[in-house]
Amino acid sequence: MTHWPVIDPQSGFAGPQEIPSESLGSGAAGSSISVERLTGGKRDGVDRVRVNNGRLSFDVLPTRGLGVHRAMLRRDVGDDLPIGWQAPVRGPVHPNFVPVAEPSGIGWLDGFDELFVRCGLNSNGAPDFDEHGRLTHGLHGKIANTPAHEAQAFFDEREKRIGVTGSVDESRLFFSKLRLSTEISAAIGEPGFRVRDTVTNLSAEPGSMQLLYHVNFGAPLCVPGARVAAPVKKLAPRGDVAAADLPTWDQCGPETPGSAESVFFMQLHSEPETDLTSVALIAPGGDLGVRLTFSTAQLPWFIVWKNRQAAEDGYVTGLEPAVNLPNPHSFERAKGRVAELAPQESRSFEVHLEVLDGTARVTAALAEIDAIQDGQVPDIRNEPNPDWSAP
Amino acid sequence: MTHWPVIDPQSGFAGPQEIPSESLGSGAAGSSISVERLTGGKRDGVDRVRVNNGRLSFDVLPTRGLGVHRAMLRRDVGDDLPIGWQAPVRGPVHPNFVPVAEPSGIGWLDGFDELFVRCGLNSNGAPDFDEHGRLTHGLHGKIANTPAHEAQAFFDEREKRIGVTGSVDESRLFFSKLRLSTEISAAIGEPGFRVRDTVTNLSAEPGSMQLLYHVNFGAPLCVPGARVAAPVKKLAPRGDVAAADLPTWDQCGPETPGSAESVFFMQLHSEPETDLTSVALIAPGGDLGVRLTFSTAQLPWFIVWKNRQAAEDGYVTGLEPAVNLPNPHSFERAKGRVAELAPQESRSFEVHLEVLDGTARVTAALAEIDAIQDGQVPDIRNEPNPDWSAP
Amino acid sequence: MTHWPVIDPQSGFAGPQEIPSESLGSGAAGSSISVERLTGGKRDGVDRVRVNNGRLSFDVLPTRGLGVHRAMLRRDVGDDLPIGWQAPVRGPVHPNFVPVAEPSGIGWLDGFDELFVRCGLNSNGAPDFDEHGRLTHGLHGKIANTPAHEAQAFFDEREKRIGVTGSVDESRLFFSKLRLSTEISAAIGEPGFRVRDTVTNLSAEPGSMQLLYHVNFGAPLCVPGARVAAPVKKLAPRGDVAAADLPTWDQCGPETPGSAESVFFMQLHSEPETDLTSVALIAPGGDLGVRLTFSTAQLPWFIVWKNRQAAEDGYVTGLEPAVNLPNPHSFERAKGRVAELAPQESRSFEVHLEVLDGTARVTAALAEIDAIQDGQVPDIRNEPNPDWSAP
Repeated sequence: MTHWPVIDPQSGFAGPQEIPSESLGSGAAGSSISVERLTGGKRDGVDRVRVNNGRLSFDVLPTRGLGVHRAMLRRDVGDDLPIGWQAPVRGPVHPNFVPVAEPSGIGWLDGFDELFVRCGLNSNGAPDFDEHGRLTHGLHGKIANTPAHEAQAFFDEREKRIGVTGSVDESRLFFSKLRLSTEISAAIGEPGFRVRDTVTNLSAEPGSMQLLYHVNFGAPLCVPGARVAAPVKKLAPRGDVAAADLPTWDQCGPETPGSAESVFFMQLHSEPETDLTSVALIAPGGDLGVRLTFSTAQLPWFIVWKNRQAAEDGYVTGLEPAVNLPNPHSFERAKGRVAELAPQESRSFEVHLEVLDGTARVTAALAEIDAIQDGQVPDIRNEPNPDWSAP
Repeated sequence: MTHWPVIDPQSGFAGPQEIPSESLGSGAAGSSISVERLTGGKRDGVDRVRVNNGRLSFDVLPTRGLGVHRAMLRRDVGDDLPIGWQAPVRGPVHPNFVPVAEPSGIGWLDGFDELFVRCGLNSNGAPDFDEHGRLTHGLHGKIANTPAHEAQAFFDEREKRIGVTGSVDESRLFFSKLRLSTEISAAIGEPGFRVRDTVTNLSAEPGSMQLLYHVNFGAPLCVPGARVAAPVKKLAPRGDVAAADLPTWDQCGPETPGSAESVFFMQLHSEPETDLTSVALIAPGGDLGVRLTFSTAQLPWFIVWKNRQAAEDGYVTGLEPAVNLPNPHSFERAKGRVAELAPQESRSFEVHLEVLDGTARVTAALAEIDAIQDGQVPDIRNEPNPDWSAP
Repeated sequence: MTHWPVIDPQSGFAGPQEIPSESLGSGAAGSSISVERLTGGKRDGVDRVRVNNGRLSFDVLPTRGLGVHRAMLRRDVGDDLPIGWQAPVRGPVHPNFVPVAEPSGIGWLDGFDELFVRCGLNSNGAPDFDEHGRLTHGLHGKIANTPAHEAQAFFDEREKRIGVTGSVDESRLFFSKLRLSTEISAAIGEPGFRVRDTVTNLSAEPGSMQLLYHVNFGAPLCVPGARVAAPVKKLAPRGDVAAADLPTWDQCGPETPGSAESVFFMQLHSEPETDLTSVALIAPGGDLGVRLTFSTAQLPWFIVWKNRQAAEDGYVTGLEPAVNLPNPHSFERAKGRVAELAPQESRSFEVHLEVLDGTARVTAALAEIDAIQDGQVPDIRNEPNPDWSAP
């Protein structure tokens, strides 16, 4: 295993670098790693690590909590395929331009334009306020706007994997002391990547955490006519908008200016031995899609988030495996969905993202999801579940 | 037309550069463009484009929404003349040091030290709060603290104009998606500059905008004894302080420690064919002044803002052509002064700033303002107008 | 006296530099100055001036209001001794990552990891809110998160002193206009440093100020068993937690996960002729300590702050000479402890920090503190003093 420092905890940013396949090591043909510090506009000062495994190139952002900004799939036929979405903001946005402490609690939206965004670690979900109407927990927490104090690029010759490891601390004296350690990597030539996260309570006192993976897809993968496939055990609309959209919860409908977001909360079936489950988003035509694989033991909740506004307003569908539901922190705490952590306790999470390029891969993925469903009839509520949705 | 990238949307900041007149092209003798990234203090990271047309040098700040920080007039006799004001803060201030989301709503003041500041785009005016007392709209909006994602310097050989073009987006998912595109330029040798702005609703949904040009003058142009000239149609004091100052609304009075700001709201006459109007600020002695020219069809309101505190506290007079009055957003909306924008609709605005160097120029400008007034008696209210001033 | 610019008000950051003893001048043998701009994580963009006087090396941070991040004592026997503490955050933290305007009022904690932190200038102490519950004064004010607009390193050949001078402005139009000017220096070979501050009201109007020096010590100096020595005149616990800890107010007790901070407010005796007083923190074993010397005329209050949480949660003791007590601003104002400043008035403050390396130095320091106490019985209250502690 060879490492290249990107951010060293002592000496800091190692500077821009290009690591061609020759330098990576044997078995890395066609692969490369490139590190840049972006400048200009709201991205000024964002460090970006572009990992290219010969098939998929994906951009990891140490400055934004080691999220993944975009990916690009090399296709044998046709143009490269961008994986991600076009938010109204031009990202990646430096955290300093994201007012997460804005009294409204929704300043987080100003930095939201990534493919793969973690929401947490202390809290996520809708903003929460105290009895004075004063913000206590901003939308989706702080981790996506906290820079990593440590990051390395690596190539593992034995496993033939390429990627980035790093750590981000979300700590405040007298409050949470949580560390995210991550490895974001891909096998050489694989049309996907894998995220392995560990969240550790660094404190000598009990702590707690929330985590939601906000994985977001726009054109060309998610356009009107795309659909979601998931082995649903139970499902409920988050609120009235989603209740009205219930018959088409798994459809990415037409661009609808003026529409509000439609959100569905669910629990999924999984493979009994492994607890693994899969969800997919399939483009119209059925020859392109994306699949997420994760453990329902680690991530017991799954959320489908659809913004059906026009493309220029950010038409997008989010697939969101989660520890908890994205309600205000106090509601989740009352419902027992905030994860408790003993002193020094860690929890690990793994999400695999795979691009399904071609009808054969799409068909196979859908068959696997069907196999997990295994004919079990989903329990679908017409109304929001008062245990799941904050009033 | 030759362009030099300053901020490229993809590759970012093009770096410091010096473009002497030889490189600009024919007809640019004595002119130059210089691009710097400032460091140290609160200005750390601010990009500055200094445009010198041989007579006037003015500093455009891509980092601060393409506002104009200062100008400097070369005079045939005597020292160069600075145009701008000395705020209590040492600017230009990087937006990251301006807490526009501070619960008080007035954090914007920390970045306020420029000659030419746009207030907008979604809102401007006094801060607005919801029923919980929680900030909804900060003082004067976000555009002056939003960095341009794109900027270029240019020289137009045909028109013999030199300047900067660029764009700034003020966008948030689920909220406004507004773009400011600007050209700030001067003819070679002209003792002034022209700002041409277009604000576009990038959304597929209806939007709205507010815009106010906060153009600010301190010593040596605005000192006690300076006066404002404008072809007033209707005028009212904003509140009690201004009502008491009404007899001297157009006078820049003595430095008065402890005084509060004195603000006057007005509508102006304009040339019938062109809708153009002019306002001026004339230094004591009558041999120096500044004139703004703009269209009352584009900018139907005009505000005179006088801070009469001592020089060290920021003695300054602002001349402010505007789409709306600088009241809280909800008041302006109720009064119908928030400009509606259809999907993809644009509105354009133009303001010309001209330094009046010498008695002849001052006299000519005052004569033109008199000609627009054309003997029509201004309608001056003694009290705040309840349709114009929020309670 | 030779100066090396670090931050110039016009040209900005002078860049990284190494000034070896040869360049400093005669009498500076073994000394050096090093200037760096840190990168990576939350420290990205922080400028650090490391001053080494041959015995003690200390890090001054122009970016963080010219506070002192850490010091390191060279010892004749054994390893170098770090002076400072390990906060849960990995600092030094750039002010842009410190949400001082967070509605909670305690965002300041995110940047708190320094040895020597000024709390002020307009306010310090617990956050204050208006009648809407809206933040008016954040915890401990703004000065520690305001960058210096001017800083120089210097060596004074006559005095044989090495250090940094600089200025930080805390100014807002219509509000305070305060300037901190500081000299942080050490005699060559001295195991300590001296801070000389002047706070000036730059305004033509009356102003006010608060100032508290938050000087913080963790391991190896402050560990369980360490103790505080001070010539106490009057002492009261801040609240119930400290009241319960009163019998051991001067003891650094065992690491106690789950404990709340224990804070004691006091007035000290001083030398009658000079008004100087001393306080010390002595490590277990009695062969290591630190002493602060200051004037009770300048700094009439002294606070002992003990965080007894585990090391990983920031076990630390703060010794805090102050102009006022760290209550909400409105309480201190009501009690007359906000210092008034006439227009252009300045106040000066001096704090000397000395490491007591070895039993002889510890014993001598304790004897001096005893001499100031001079047998006078301290007036120790069991309960919070309602004039000292906000309800």
